[in-house]
Amino acid sequence: MFFLSDNAASPCPEVLDAVVAAAPAAAAGYDGDAVSAQLDAEFGALFGRACTVLPVGTGTAANALALAAMVPPFGAVVCHSEAHIHVDECGAPEFFTGGAKLLLVPGGDGRLTASGIDTALAGHRGDVHQVQARALSLTQATEAGTVYAPDALAALGDHARAKGWRVHLDGARFANAVAHLGCAPGDISWRAGVDILSFGMIKNGGMTAEALVVFAPELVAELRFRRKRAGQMPSKGRFQAAQLLAMVRDDVWLRNARAANAGAAQLAAAAAGRLLYPVEANEVFVQLRPGEPERLRAQGFSFYDWGAAGSNEARFVVAWDTPPGDVAALAAALG
Amino acid sequence: MFFLSDNAASPCPEVLDAVVAAAPAAAAGYDGDAVSAQLDAEFGALFGRACTVLPVGTGTAANALALAAMVPPFGAVVCHSEAHIHVDECGAPEFFTGGAKLLLVPGGDGRLTASGIDTALAGHRGDVHQVQARALSLTQATEAGTVYAPDALAALGDHARAKGWRVHLDGARFANAVAHLGCAPGDISWRAGVDILSFGMIKNGGMTAEALVVFAPELVAELRFRRKRAGQMPSKGRFQAAQLLAMVRDDVWLRNARAANAGAAQLAAAAAGRLLYPVEANEVFVQLRPGEPERLRAQGFSFYDWGAAGSNEARFVVAWDTPPGDVAALAAALG
Amino acid sequence: MFFLSDNAASPCPEVLDAVVAAAPAAAAGYDGDAVSAQLDAEFGALFGRACTVLPVGTGTAANALALAAMVPPFGAVVCHSEAHIHVDECGAPEFFTGGAKLLLVPGGDGRLTASGIDTALAGHRGDVHQVQARALSLTQATEAGTVYAPDALAALGDHARAKGWRVHLDGARFANAVAHLGCAPGDISWRAGVDILSFGMIKNGGMTAEALVVFAPELVAELRFRRKRAGQMPSKGRFQAAQLLAMVRDDVWLRNARAANAGAAQLAAAAAGRLLYPVEANEVFVQLRPGEPERLRAQGFSFYDWGAAGSNEARFVVAWDTPPGDVAALAAALG
Amino acid sequence: MFFLSDNAASPCPEVLDAVVAAAPAAAAGYDGDAVSAQLDAEFGALFGRACTVLPVGTGTAANALALAAMVPPFGAVVCHSEAHIHVDECGAPEFFTGGAKLLLVPGGDGRLTASGIDTALAGHRGDVHQVQARALSLTQATEAGTVYAPDALAALGDHARAKGWRVHLDGARFANAVAHLGCAPGDISWRAGVDILSFGMIKNGGMTAEALVVFAPELVAELRFRRKRAGQMPSKGRFQAAQLLAMVRDDVWLRNARAANAGAAQLAAAAAGRLLYPVEANEVFVQLRPGEPERLRAQGFSFYDWGAAGSNEARFVVAWDTPPGDVAALAAALG
Repeated sequence: MFFLSDNAASPCPEVLDAVVAAAPAAAAGYDGDAVSAQLDAEFGALFGRACTVLPVGTGTAANALALAAMVPPFGAVVCHSEAHIHVDECGAPEFFTGGAKLLLVPGGDGRLTASGIDTALAGHRGDVHQVQARALSLTQATEAGTVYAPDALAALGDHARAKGWRVHLDGARFANAVAHLGCAPGDISWRAGVDILSFGMIKNGGMTAEALVVFAPELVAELRFRRKRAGQMPSKGRFQAAQLLAMVRDDVWLRNARAANAGAAQLAAAAAGRLLYPVEANEVFVQLRPGEPERLRAQGFSFYDWGAAGSNEARFVVAWDTPPGDVAALAAALG
Repeated sequence: MFFLSDNAASPCPEVLDAVVAAAPAAAAGYDGDAVSAQLDAEFGALFGRACTVLPVGTGTAANALALAAMVPPFGAVVCHSEAHIHVDECGAPEFFTGGAKLLLVPGGDGRLTASGIDTALAGHRGDVHQVQARALSLTQATEAGTVYAPDALAALGDHARAKGWRVHLDGARFANAVAHLGCAPGDISWRAGVDILSFGMIKNGGMTAEALVVFAPELVAELRFRRKRAGQMPSKGRFQAAQLLAMVRDDVWLRNARAANAGAAQLAAAAAGRLLYPVEANEVFVQLRPGEPERLRAQGFSFYDWGAAGSNEARFVVAWDTPPGDVAALAAALG
Repeated sequence: MFFLSDNAASPCPEVLDAVVAAAPAAAAGYDGDAVSAQLDAEFGALFGRACTVLPVGTGTAANALALAAMVPPFGAVVCHSEAHIHVDECGAPEFFTGGAKLLLVPGGDGRLTASGIDTALAGHRGDVHQVQARALSLTQATEAGTVYAPDALAALGDHARAKGWRVHLDGARFANAVAHLGCAPGDISWRAGVDILSFGMIKNGGMTAEALVVFAPELVAELRFRRKRAGQMPSKGRFQAAQLLAMVRDDVWLRNARAANAGAAQLAAAAAGRLLYPVEANEVFVQLRPGEPERLRAQGFSFYDWGAAGSNEARFVVAWDTPPGDVAALAAALG
Repeated sequence: MFFLSDNAASPCPEVLDAVVAAAPAAAAGYDGDAVSAQLDAEFGALFGRACTVLPVGTGTAANALALAAMVPPFGAVVCHSEAHIHVDECGAPEFFTGGAKLLLVPGGDGRLTASGIDTALAGHRGDVHQVQARALSLTQATEAGTVYAPDALAALGDHARAKGWRVHLDGARFANAVAHLGCAPGDISWRAGVDILSFGMIKNGGMTAEALVVFAPELVAELRFRRKRAGQMPSKGRFQAAQLLAMVRDDVWLRNARAANAGAAQLAAAAAGRLLYPVEANEVFVQLRPGEPERLRAQGFSFYDWGAAGSNEARFVVAWDTPPGDVAALAAALG
């Protein structure tokens, strides 16, 4: 019973069908095919605003390309000290930006606040001896499985804009956040000041494509070159486009995210009182008791230890396709 | 009737089936799944030598990663002046290597020769004011649709080794070269001194995965980090691995390449006497007559103009799945 | 009365004389002249070990080149969270290394400890999703004006070596540390495991040259290319070499450092009881009283505020040429 | 008798005096001192236009920083195939730009022409698969010791502007060009469309400072960060500024360049009929006779062989301080 991560889950049937349907030869390669041509319009309809969609192969590529479009090599990105871009992408942001620095800001429950940012950067000067922040990268849902409310996100977006920064949203679990909030996707993206959204599909029932959704049209032309240059522009681009379209059509992305969130909520209820963070998406962080990790593993549950060695903290992730029986079994074991 | 390129052709059935079969959730992400675990052994059997296979999403990524593993930022790569890495990858080699230089060498029929390399580099010094060559990048089949014989390739490999250079082979159409030569794949890779092969699958019936085949084990560890850092390590890596396995099993790759080569041979026969280069793979470069390009297009054939504007040179590419009837029609039109 | 910094002090007479003496045309440019040819031997004698000296124009260049020779782009440098390479070099390490990450470690009184490093990196994994530490960068004297004892430095060097890391020493105020310790310069460089020392001259009576002293011969060849590529290899290199030789001859560097340290000691005595850090070099950090900063400035003393706004912390730096009367006046004002 | 290069010549007395005069401690480091504060105004007066002067330590740094301010990493610089930035700077442009490509254009007598550029780039496409030219880098005087007339330079500037490119001028021997043309320095810089000039001082009697003269104010802010980040902003910046001021005051730069040019003209007259290029600055390229190189060296003349091995081509460079007797002796030997 897998609760390690949602990152190797099965693609959902709609995605798989779309890939198969995209198989016939296309008249033009890269993004010149008929499937790719539909991306901008369909995502634009979903978000309620014109946008450009650039498919890429991984979330790391999505994030790093977005940041490279926003900050110069001598610039900096402000992000949470636990942000995936800092912790788990092997320095991809530094690679793609040409060596920009990530300025790390702590924050409770995985969230940043305007005052937290200001405190962390209080001593940062504007002279040429220091790299200058040019972008804020937020994560929604956060690394702690929590979610920014639309107004909290918009406040951060305003804070960034007031400083002249761009805003990037790492939405590896964006769908789970929307599902949790019940808002429109635009409410926690462009309406909150987001310039570029890494709209994660892979963890949510996609296969091998993520969507870079660009709301700032002036950033698009450069991004196209950077994407090609990064080896992120496959000649059979229709297979990526097909996956993305399948996800956003008929609310498939929401359906999948709701399923995952529901499973997590079930676990959260069972572990009430010993949750490390509020459960607002599909990740559940639990303070286990001594011996409990071993016991749960012996019962067939796989999950990651979290926090410091010996802390008995654990992370359980529910995927869109985690069998309800597995969730129920884990809830019972935790309860 | 498409003769523009093989780069947007349909994936072959085996590849598509393998992708579908890889759908169920995996216990571990990235390359920790059971499908990915089979790559090294199966490619090793095919090549007759232990190797490491790193799947990547595009040929550009394959080439650029390989070169980055071979040359330092202050180094240089020797390549043909028409090499894809120089002409059509938007500076990806410069990006991935951190700014290494490509030293361009001309050569007839798309091929390099040892003496051609030495002539081109005759004035290049070894002092710190010039970047130093550290790798030779060859293309097989070449950009001109020709093929290096195994001994010609080995001679170039020896030439490179004698200078202390690494050897990279851009094999976007490696299968077509093997099919033409009737040799073992090892004969035009590691036996010829190749350290890393970009083994192209996508143009030959693959879908979205290329294989970086590393014969120099000392280069592997670093490449894994570089691949991750470049956003080329998808969490559902099994979908890439499945495609690669499907291609090398049961000689699917050879079958596909032979079909494409046969079509090209048919066109070559029809255009005998006005071929720009010998036809040894699946590309046919023809000196058309004035008015002929327009006439052919009016007949429904799509293809690229080549060479200088107004030169009436044309490139026809036959894919693994180009309908025989289309090939016959074009042959008739050219004959 | 200037106590802002030692970084714009006058060059000492020996350095100025050496520059003038280097004026006549040289038979060979770059480092091919007779002055440059003496560097390795004279520094080797000073350090008691063969070394290679590469002059560069700034401390930033010295540090960044050293780190670039030690860590790959996908690697990381472990350093103090207040290290100059992180705080005040506008991302030069990231630029020169091609995007390596600095892993920040806190430490009291400006110093790192082995256990502090281990604690900070406890959660850092060895997999490809995280950049891997490959070097430790230490600062001697530290940013807090303190000094590592030789055995403390050697313990850190051992700790780094045991992990397979290289060791860099940012010695912008190396001379002050040696003067404080009364040890041999080799005791806090190669004997403590240092591979490359940024031996600072400019703050200590030099003019426009710093010395990159390389104790690891296998790193030299690459560094020469990187230095040229970075625009750090002037054609009239003899002017840099002459400055460096003037500094190390006849203990000029020690004489200058002792003078600066003595001034700082005088200030420290006057400010006893309200020092923020032990005064072991030529920097004095003092907890001033409310109103005291303004009062001191009104008396003609210039210095930097330190710490948080309104904290009344101040930094006073004594240079090799700070007039003794100025020091006495400040001591009186502080006392 | 040295005719190898002008790059290791003596600094002229005015420069040396200025360095000595800059010795006293400054109130502020970097470019905050009183000497640095005069640069913009004095160069502005010389050029007849407001400009910003950024001192750097080498011509390589000047060129590479200028290019980095003009082209993105996915861009390209158009330059002569023999340009110093391509041939002799160890890939510094690639390093500083983050991997931009140099697009090489041949041209007779070291000069580019608009039609030559168009021919060389005829096949270059505007799609994302190719890097896009964003700047033209010209060299004045050229690598062949020739000089662009103001109208020829302006025509190239117009050609570049019409394509939306920036214009950089590598003026390592800019003074020699102005001296040859008898024009105003503005005539072959901003009036010809130049955005940034690398105004070479070191070969012309300077010591260790070159001037980056920026005529495009919108490029300045970024360049300041890039300069710091590259380790090209010394804390005792007054020593660089003092050299630059000494050069441009009282026509010292012109006096020096005229002296060098006059010597070269004397050699040119002696070698009339076997000059490889017109002699318009201070470099003389001569087709020697078999045995003549050896004979000249036996007579005590040092110089570089040029062209292919065994071609008996030679380069003689006259510096501002080459003894007239040496020039006369060489003229006699060549005559």
